[in-house]
Amino acid sequence: MAKEITSRSEDYSQWYLDIVNKAGLACNSKVRGCPVIKPYGFAIWEKIKADLDRRFKETGHVNAYFPLLIPKSFLSREAAHVEGFAKECAVVTHHRLMNAPDGNGVVVDPAAKLEEELIIRPTSETIIWDTYRDWIQSYRDLPLLINQWANVLRWEMRTRPFLRTAEFLWQEGHTAHATRAEAEEEALKMVHVYADFVQDMMAIPLYIGEKTANERFAGADNTYTIEALMQDGKALQSGTSHFLGQNFAKAFDVKFLNQNNKEELVWATSWGVSTRLMGALIMMHSDDEGLVLPPKLAPTQVVIIPVPKPNEEINNVVDEIIKELRSKGVSVKYDMDKKKRPGFKFAQYEMEGVPVRLAIGKRDLANGVIEVARRDTKEKKSVDLEGIADYVVQLLEDIQINLFDRAKKFRNDNTHKVDSWEEFFDVVSNGGFAYAHWDGTKETELKIKELTKATTRCIPLKPLPQFEDDGEGKCILTGKHSSQRILFARAY
Amino acid sequence: MAKEITSRSEDYSQWYLDIVNKAGLACNSKVRGCPVIKPYGFAIWEKIKADLDRRFKETGHVNAYFPLLIPKSFLSREAAHVEGFAKECAVVTHHRLMNAPDGNGVVVDPAAKLEEELIIRPTSETIIWDTYRDWIQSYRDLPLLINQWANVLRWEMRTRPFLRTAEFLWQEGHTAHATRAEAEEEALKMVHVYADFVQDMMAIPLYIGEKTANERFAGADNTYTIEALMQDGKALQSGTSHFLGQNFAKAFDVKFLNQNNKEELVWATSWGVSTRLMGALIMMHSDDEGLVLPPKLAPTQVVIIPVPKPNEEINNVVDEIIKELRSKGVSVKYDMDKKKRPGFKFAQYEMEGVPVRLAIGKRDLANGVIEVARRDTKEKKSVDLEGIADYVVQLLEDIQINLFDRAKKFRNDNTHKVDSWEEFFDVVSNGGFAYAHWDGTKETELKIKELTKATTRCIPLKPLPQFEDDGEGKCILTGKHSSQRILFARAY
Repeated sequence: MAKEITSRSEDYSQWYLDIVNKAGLACNSKVRGCPVIKPYGFAIWEKIKADLDRRFKETGHVNAYFPLLIPKSFLSREAAHVEGFAKECAVVTHHRLMNAPDGNGVVVDPAAKLEEELIIRPTSETIIWDTYRDWIQSYRDLPLLINQWANVLRWEMRTRPFLRTAEFLWQEGHTAHATRAEAEEEALKMVHVYADFVQDMMAIPLYIGEKTANERFAGADNTYTIEALMQDGKALQSGTSHFLGQNFAKAFDVKFLNQNNKEELVWATSWGVSTRLMGALIMMHSDDEGLVLPPKLAPTQVVIIPVPKPNEEINNVVDEIIKELRSKGVSVKYDMDKKKRPGFKFAQYEMEGVPVRLAIGKRDLANGVIEVARRDTKEKKSVDLEGIADYVVQLLEDIQINLFDRAKKFRNDNTHKVDSWEEFFDVVSNGGFAYAHWDGTKETELKIKELTKATTRCIPLKPLPQFEDDGEGKCILTGKHSSQRILFARAY
Repeated sequence: MAKEITSRSEDYSQWYLDIVNKAGLACNSKVRGCPVIKPYGFAIWEKIKADLDRRFKETGHVNAYFPLLIPKSFLSREAAHVEGFAKECAVVTHHRLMNAPDGNGVVVDPAAKLEEELIIRPTSETIIWDTYRDWIQSYRDLPLLINQWANVLRWEMRTRPFLRTAEFLWQEGHTAHATRAEAEEEALKMVHVYADFVQDMMAIPLYIGEKTANERFAGADNTYTIEALMQDGKALQSGTSHFLGQNFAKAFDVKFLNQNNKEELVWATSWGVSTRLMGALIMMHSDDEGLVLPPKLAPTQVVIIPVPKPNEEINNVVDEIIKELRSKGVSVKYDMDKKKRPGFKFAQYEMEGVPVRLAIGKRDLANGVIEVARRDTKEKKSVDLEGIADYVVQLLEDIQINLFDRAKKFRNDNTHKVDSWEEFFDVVSNGGFAYAHWDGTKETELKIKELTKATTRCIPLKPLPQFEDDGEGKCILTGKHSSQRILFARAY
């Protein structure tokens, strides 16, 4: 089974697609750019969703649901927003089909043309702020701290499962505040909620920072981002949180009476992560044998395989182990299928990234041991049956930490402080973050992109701790003054 | 606050809309027929969803996600299905907007016309069975037991929040089986999963039965349904489960090799419940003071109100109560808002249907008691602070049972075994189920509907237990032979 996937060194891009396919995470549908998320992939997404949802609620947010369709005219209300989103989106023009006059199937009924076309939401700021106008009258109605789990659609030309798809699943937080300071604080708080989740649960180390003006969300005054580094040295933007100023309040006329009974425009944030996180998760930890999952997000954390087949004696021992593991909150599966050989099963669960595999046969039983294999390092060892549950619980924790540490070492090894254009070009061409000075202009940013395909990833919130902070400097391209280093990389 | 809603006797339909509005469950958006589900409404839906999802998983199902958009031609593949669904649906014809030539906003870019139009899913049988073809080769791939939580859209002309909306949220199970018997068993199993949920959690008594051929899902060979009776005497179909035979396997060419290596068409079921359940929940238990929620689905089960205001002594006692209630799994809120008077708060939580209200003032404290009010009966009594948590837990259980019993009494009081046309006409006109003989023909069914606006609700799986079973009989309209009584009513 493992032989069926392309190695990373041979073709990284095909390796990714092979894992998505062979591990049963997603598959194509007949609708361009809209893959099907298969049950195993969806089980991982459900774990991501549940944990994020808990974090949103713990920080005071509630969920709601807004319409899928947005009147076309809403998009034009906010000038930057329409530039960013109106262009590539699915447009509903009719509300009825009819039998084809030639008797072959159905055709659009020309009589059912909509007065105003509707857009499938590419993001929901417009429809939500049109609603908030009715919900907000006074400072007493603020803040509104609302999140929505939804599907959105952007007509992308080049798509890749999870990483870039036309339709995708995400959550979008949309908050409304009485003051600028409170909204700014919220935007910053939420990028940290994302960072904590991605680092703690997904074992992916991050750089947290601000986007340059040029890379901001269409309609934002400031965009915070979390940036990860994939194994091929390309960066992946994993979540963003936007301070929207009063832009949408202006566009949709959302005002409130403040404590002095004076009318003011409302301040806004929005923030989102999507099934793109699945792409990051797959690419970050996996290897040439298949998917590698951090234990905290693995639908099955432990698989137990009888060697060569189940029998009563083995089953009794395994039942006890399962009972104990479950009581400790571990998800465990016992594969009793008699039609498949152990070797086939081993390869299958490696492909699926199950963090820990236990294998037990007659001789193990006689010796009072069980074979424990960890997916991250592929180490195997014989462990005493006595106390095995505690051993496995500890091992799952170790694997979670090891994956993070490994990824962090890789990320740090591939983050370079560079001071010459030559070095800069080398770093971003070979893959990795270049931590360099930049003169702060859009012209330079675009020129660098043109010359190297690298983009500004973020202006880190704090100078990177692994380097000595050298303060101000000179732009890597123009030599002009730069107030701080920022991160560049080629990106997904 | 309570005065603001219309009474049921005055205008039942307006009463419903008033509750939806005043309890903060939903509100209109600018998109016709697509309301916004507000945070409080969504919190109830989340509880519904979580419990159903658990039940689906306990019966062996897994979740997945399929595309929102369906190629137009897919709908025509299954003859009955296209008749049922193609007519009123949102059609995507273009994938791009452009700046309007006159500089005013954006218009559809005629160059971005899709080769084949895409339909926003009204239900997903077609796209799912087109995918299942790739997933199913042999009997070893079966059964597939998959569920999807999704938004769907049907272009309804007359809409009402939750009860009938253009876009709505639902789950749709789609299973594939090797044998007819297994698929039939699955369809029947799932209608019972629905019935158990609706009766246990929503406290709504049901009749479970089969739909007549005329009322079946478009593409089904058999449809099971659960039918509830609302306070105005109209029936509400609350969930359906379909045995689809091999209709979709035929339409999408989904075959498998059986154990004898012979090719066969796959057998199918599908089943769904939607945010319509929210409508049923609201209409079933509420009264002229607002929403009444069964404790098992109430986002806040207990509210505590200090009278007239919070103070340290009260707070200390309340903190203890809260701690104890939470440790027993009860969700509780302490309303410390000093700007609102107790009377205002009482009315507000009555409107929101919080099952139990505790109010405590200085004199209560001195006497070691607290005032307990139950929302269902509006009874109030003084209860010893000592043991109050246990008292409240028991009360919540009592309320759940009382709501079910009350609804069941109402339903039974309004279910009439009728044997004359006159009686029949009276029952369905005044509201309620008529349990009557029918000759089994579509002509008679349609004639009855034309004469009375009542439809066949279901052929009960078992004769109704509250009546003596009298076996065969004569059709209420035609006098022709009937093999069993069935249920008729006017319906939502």
